[in-house]
Amino acid sequence: MRLGVQREGVLDILKGRVLCTMFYEPSTRTSTSFDAAMQRLGGRTIAISTEHSSTVKGESLQDSLRTLACYGDAIVLRHPEEDSVDVAAKFSPVPVINGGNGSKEHPTQAFLDLFTIREELGTVTGLTITFTGDLRHGRTVHSLCKLLQYYDVQVQLVSPPQLALPADIRDMLKASGQLIKESTELTEDIVAKSDVLYCTRVQKERFADLAEYERLKDTFIIDNKTLKAAKPSMVVMHPLPRNAEVAGEVDFDQRAAYFRQMRYGLYCRMALLALVMAP
Amino acid sequence: MRLGVQREGVLDILKGRVLCTMFYEPSTRTSTSFDAAMQRLGGRTIAISTEHSSTVKGESLQDSLRTLACYGDAIVLRHPEEDSVDVAAKFSPVPVINGGNGSKEHPTQAFLDLFTIREELGTVTGLTITFTGDLRHGRTVHSLCKLLQYYDVQVQLVSPPQLALPADIRDMLKASGQLIKESTELTEDIVAKSDVLYCTRVQKERFADLAEYERLKDTFIIDNKTLKAAKPSMVVMHPLPRNAEVAGEVDFDQRAAYFRQMRYGLYCRMALLALVMAP
Amino acid sequence: MRLGVQREGVLDILKGRVLCTMFYEPSTRTSTSFDAAMQRLGGRTIAISTEHSSTVKGESLQDSLRTLACYGDAIVLRHPEEDSVDVAAKFSPVPVINGGNGSKEHPTQAFLDLFTIREELGTVTGLTITFTGDLRHGRTVHSLCKLLQYYDVQVQLVSPPQLALPADIRDMLKASGQLIKESTELTEDIVAKSDVLYCTRVQKERFADLAEYERLKDTFIIDNKTLKAAKPSMVVMHPLPRNAEVAGEVDFDQRAAYFRQMRYGLYCRMALLALVMAP
Repeated sequence: MRLGVQREGVLDILKGRVLCTMFYEPSTRTSTSFDAAMQRLGGRTIAISTEHSSTVKGESLQDSLRTLACYGDAIVLRHPEEDSVDVAAKFSPVPVINGGNGSKEHPTQAFLDLFTIREELGTVTGLTITFTGDLRHGRTVHSLCKLLQYYDVQVQLVSPPQLALPADIRDMLKASGQLIKESTELTEDIVAKSDVLYCTRVQKERFADLAEYERLKDTFIIDNKTLKAAKPSMVVMHPLPRNAEVAGEVDFDQRAAYFRQMRYGLYCRMALLALVMAP
Repeated sequence: MRLGVQREGVLDILKGRVLCTMFYEPSTRTSTSFDAAMQRLGGRTIAISTEHSSTVKGESLQDSLRTLACYGDAIVLRHPEEDSVDVAAKFSPVPVINGGNGSKEHPTQAFLDLFTIREELGTVTGLTITFTGDLRHGRTVHSLCKLLQYYDVQVQLVSPPQLALPADIRDMLKASGQLIKESTELTEDIVAKSDVLYCTRVQKERFADLAEYERLKDTFIIDNKTLKAAKPSMVVMHPLPRNAEVAGEVDFDQRAAYFRQMRYGLYCRMALLALVMAP
Repeated sequence: MRLGVQREGVLDILKGRVLCTMFYEPSTRTSTSFDAAMQRLGGRTIAISTEHSSTVKGESLQDSLRTLACYGDAIVLRHPEEDSVDVAAKFSPVPVINGGNGSKEHPTQAFLDLFTIREELGTVTGLTITFTGDLRHGRTVHSLCKLLQYYDVQVQLVSPPQLALPADIRDMLKASGQLIKESTELTEDIVAKSDVLYCTRVQKERFADLAEYERLKDTFIIDNKTLKAAKPSMVVMHPLPRNAEVAGEVDFDQRAAYFRQMRYGLYCRMALLALVMAP
């Protein structure tokens, strides 16, 4: 995929195929990269604007999916409700790719995160991966933790107690013996042990007590000082968008992998679309 | 068209042609199916977002149409004002396809409705077609009634008095001798006589008296019980989106034609675009 | 470009290239014509909806640009802040085309304006160009004045004092000896001397004193009476959209060049994209 894009720009693998994208929640990266992935495979994309469509006339999700299935060969869906993927699996006659369902999962992000780790570090095996920020609502973290069950890795969790990982996912990590550390502060020790530092946004609106937000938010700002304690080979990842949790100065450090991570996302989504839609 | 799509996915008939779509009212089916139709003919589509465009700077419809005519080879327009089609006919230098003008007409829906009847029942001649729901505001009903003037059919109208068909269209049906029944309730007799049961949404917001809405709305819910009285060959059609007027259980009855109807819409719009835009 | 579009509809020059467009302000003409230009060059376009994207999650402009640079080969940006082009120049790894930055500049409009003058009048050399309307906020005027520095032309400025050209651009015209007339009223003399009458919208919302707006607005309505004083070869230009400042009756005068101007815009933007993006 990567070589193809670098050499040809657009390939011919999905020539004659049509992808519908329907995002009920804001998105730049996921919707744009699926659009780009489809087009760079030679296919065509139809984007449904959910604010300007039949959902305002009270149409059910299952009817909307059946509609798109009449026009396209596959659907990418982002929806605020967690059971939207079950509705899609039950009613859509064409393949539906989950582009994020509520706070629950974001599986294509997990694919590209894993691909990023392999590209940047050569392997996933034996690595220590540290998650920081809002682990409770961060669906990219939930999906990646599940995917990491298939790998021999160690996991460190760093978040304020109110934003800790949901119990079921934490229990899963414990049961598999991967969880080696939990902390409410990002200490030098934790950073020094990490091969991957996976950051997420701490969202102000999640805090009931603003004073606590103010107290906690600075614990999680990654800057050049934080990186002093890190291995030279460590990579900083972030699903983006970011607010202040990764300082701009870090962008110029080779360990900042989050912009390359987006580019890998294009290749991963191309591979996924080819797998699902190629004749 | 259908065979072409099934075999090739995308054809080459409109390669090198550009269609502009401009929808001033919400739409999923019509805008998406025109987009898909154009792309499956090998052409390209440019969708104008009317909320995010020069109309907010006070531009007239005729200037907007002239603008699109500079960039595209044809235009699909949906507009809340009934005379928008006259403005388009007068000022646009390129063909404009009416995608719905206010409560008045929706001609491409009438084409696909007629095509659906022929595909499902083999012919239109001699059939009895029953319209139910909001016949006053349902522009798809208005357009189909006009098209049916060219066919030997019988028509039954079922709606609350407040939502009856506009007088001019009703008079047209009377004059042509097609109107055989008018009712405010969907009785077993009416269902039993029907070859086509064409349902539309009863829109709560159209009722001044909510008590009356509550009293009437259940008369028009089509469910498996309703279908017990129907011929085995009858088809249930609906322009969609639906709310509660066709129960979900009906989806699994072979007589439910409304999902196939959408797919036929793709082929009809492909045929129309090819007719209008092919070199 | 023009011959190619007229003969082939869509060319192959940018086959395999992807353009991202991101408009933070309303636009029909600029966004649509870039989309059409890219598609008619055989390329593909991805439009980012800024209301429905990560900017609502607080992402910085530079991060948004880096994101698009991962998916597309060039970016067209319209942004309300004047320094947005500097941010783009500093942080984007791919070419960024300025589609309008605040009230400051709109360079691709200046290209198409200049091209319009050459197409309509054969040359730019020796012409007298009159700007009317809101010269203070009209960024198309600012950009064209700068471009005209490279040509031997004379300039007349007609605007209410509150909407006069910004001092730095006016000084530039004075220094180059091009500014031959300033007026607050569009007199017959000024019209008679003009080879190009370049109109812009007088925007009601810019006036603090509505009485003054009411008094001034009619000075700037171009109608058939205004054109009586004009040369037979004069052309009326307007970046559009227009409100009342050019009367509808003028549309039928051959001197009304503003609709042709839009079509020229398509060719200019095709040329620019080919220059920037062709392999």
